[in-house]
Amino acid sequence: MKKVAIGIDIGGTNSAIGVVDELGNVLVKDTIDTPNHGNIQMFIDDLATAIKKQISNVKLLNADLEILGIGIGAPNANYYKGTIEHAPNLSFKGIIPFSDLLKSKLPEYQTIALTNDANAAALGEMIYGGAKGMKNFAMFTLGTGVGSGIVVNGDLVYGNDGFAGECGHMILVPNGRHCGCGGRGHLEAYCSAPGMKRTAFELLVLYNDTSSALANKSFNELDSKMIYDAAMAGDKIANEVFEITGSYLGQGMADTVHHLSPEAIFLFGGPTAAGDLIFGPTQRSLEAHLMPIFRNKIKILPSKLSLGDAAIVGASALVWKEIEKR
Amino acid sequence: MKKVAIGIDIGGTNSAIGVVDELGNVLVKDTIDTPNHGNIQMFIDDLATAIKKQISNVKLLNADLEILGIGIGAPNANYYKGTIEHAPNLSFKGIIPFSDLLKSKLPEYQTIALTNDANAAALGEMIYGGAKGMKNFAMFTLGTGVGSGIVVNGDLVYGNDGFAGECGHMILVPNGRHCGCGGRGHLEAYCSAPGMKRTAFELLVLYNDTSSALANKSFNELDSKMIYDAAMAGDKIANEVFEITGSYLGQGMADTVHHLSPEAIFLFGGPTAAGDLIFGPTQRSLEAHLMPIFRNKIKILPSKLSLGDAAIVGASALVWKEIEKR
Repeated sequence: MKKVAIGIDIGGTNSAIGVVDELGNVLVKDTIDTPNHGNIQMFIDDLATAIKKQISNVKLLNADLEILGIGIGAPNANYYKGTIEHAPNLSFKGIIPFSDLLKSKLPEYQTIALTNDANAAALGEMIYGGAKGMKNFAMFTLGTGVGSGIVVNGDLVYGNDGFAGECGHMILVPNGRHCGCGGRGHLEAYCSAPGMKRTAFELLVLYNDTSSALANKSFNELDSKMIYDAAMAGDKIANEVFEITGSYLGQGMADTVHHLSPEAIFLFGGPTAAGDLIFGPTQRSLEAHLMPIFRNKIKILPSKLSLGDAAIVGASALVWKEIEKR
Repeated sequence: MKKVAIGIDIGGTNSAIGVVDELGNVLVKDTIDTPNHGNIQMFIDDLATAIKKQISNVKLLNADLEILGIGIGAPNANYYKGTIEHAPNLSFKGIIPFSDLLKSKLPEYQTIALTNDANAAALGEMIYGGAKGMKNFAMFTLGTGVGSGIVVNGDLVYGNDGFAGECGHMILVPNGRHCGCGGRGHLEAYCSAPGMKRTAFELLVLYNDTSSALANKSFNELDSKMIYDAAMAGDKIANEVFEITGSYLGQGMADTVHHLSPEAIFLFGGPTAAGDLIFGPTQRSLEAHLMPIFRNKIKILPSKLSLGDAAIVGASALVWKEIEKR
């Protein structure tokens, strides 16, 4: 009998549901709207219906399937309590007992577990991806924000309260750029996609460079993809944005290494498509910021999860990990 | 039969040997010279003789003892390999297979384990001290340097290569003060005892304050005890040194919390005797640098290990931890 796990990714606009096999292949998937009116019970009903539909669909492909459980990736998710707490981009306010609500609709599944998106991605990397067999690694997810998941001794680090792994909010520059969390100088304010845009404008200001392609875009227009395209076309400012972003990222990673001495740090997300443009300066900066005993040991690797399915696949990995723990 | 463990602390000048009971009491202890001529085999011989002597001594007190094993705390110690590697303050250069050498002299002890001083202190806190029952915490040891030990899910974090827990070398100030490790702007360069002295002179320079008691000491004379005494006597510069030291320490701890979400961070070492002078600004700075979800949750606690015996006691804790793992 083939074993599969259900992975769910709760997003601000849409939520995705997929059925994933042991190799990390998404067999079937669908998305539903995440309501913007805050009615959590209606959403749980819709989600349970959508899950049942995907289970029917996948059983059309292969009737001989065992569904092991449901893993959920969500913002501000608390693994210990199965709750989503005060998620700024979701309409469900306060503390939502998400796992319990879903369990009451789908009592046939013993294993229903919840974690945040970046933790789910790290688990996905460990169960299906490039971190197979690694016991100590970290994963940084670069996007609108910078998330992270940390694995120590083969287990995800949740910490005392379930919220560990907020490496995106380590302080790189005392009293530096304002971060979305309210803090100052955080890695996320420099190395996220909006952080790269901020760096681009900082450089335009510094050099007063009117010839750069980036000088023709407004602050609201410019995005990291445009910076990448300009860099590939030889734009000096755009290339320096990648150099500086990698420099900050490497500095932050050095703090992670000094804490945890991981075997590797994985990078996931849109900006990693720039390849050596971002990996090169990041690795150089990491080495420059490491103590001698850690040098030339730590690999910075691109995630092997596909960008499109990573959220579903990562969430489903939670199920295999829960079963392994028993 | 009463169970005891042997704890050994390898220092640059002296090495201490003690026999420790399950409550962390040091029943007997002694010190021997750590040779400054690099002859490791002669030192191992001396150490084995000293251990046997302490075992005889403790059996005079209570004949009905079971010696569970030997735990060693040493600088640059690698737990996985049982080695001391390139320790700058020891005369033994290169990679010393310390555990194996000692085992060959004392084959009757199955459990001989080695870790660095700060890791040993963290284990001591968990087995005998204020971290009993805690599964996630960190310990910072303030002294000539700043060491740290991290516990996640009830186990010490050694990382991929055995060298995890170098929180003293996280970067607080990009391109800041030179650190003894060769890096720049590390926590150790601000929050160690010499770091406090550097801050004192920075403040004398800033204010050109000739009336401070600290203005009468040379750079080589001034130490953290004098700064403490001056602060207690109302010296403004000395008080500001503690304020700034705590501010840096809290900033660094915030990065540790954002990585690991510990229940508490313990402080150990001479400067902690200053009590609220150092704990107050550290706690305030930590709270100011934390993301909202971590605020008012993390305790900063003084170590419950006695300053004099902590190294022996911490090293002995390694033995109980090894036995627990079996």
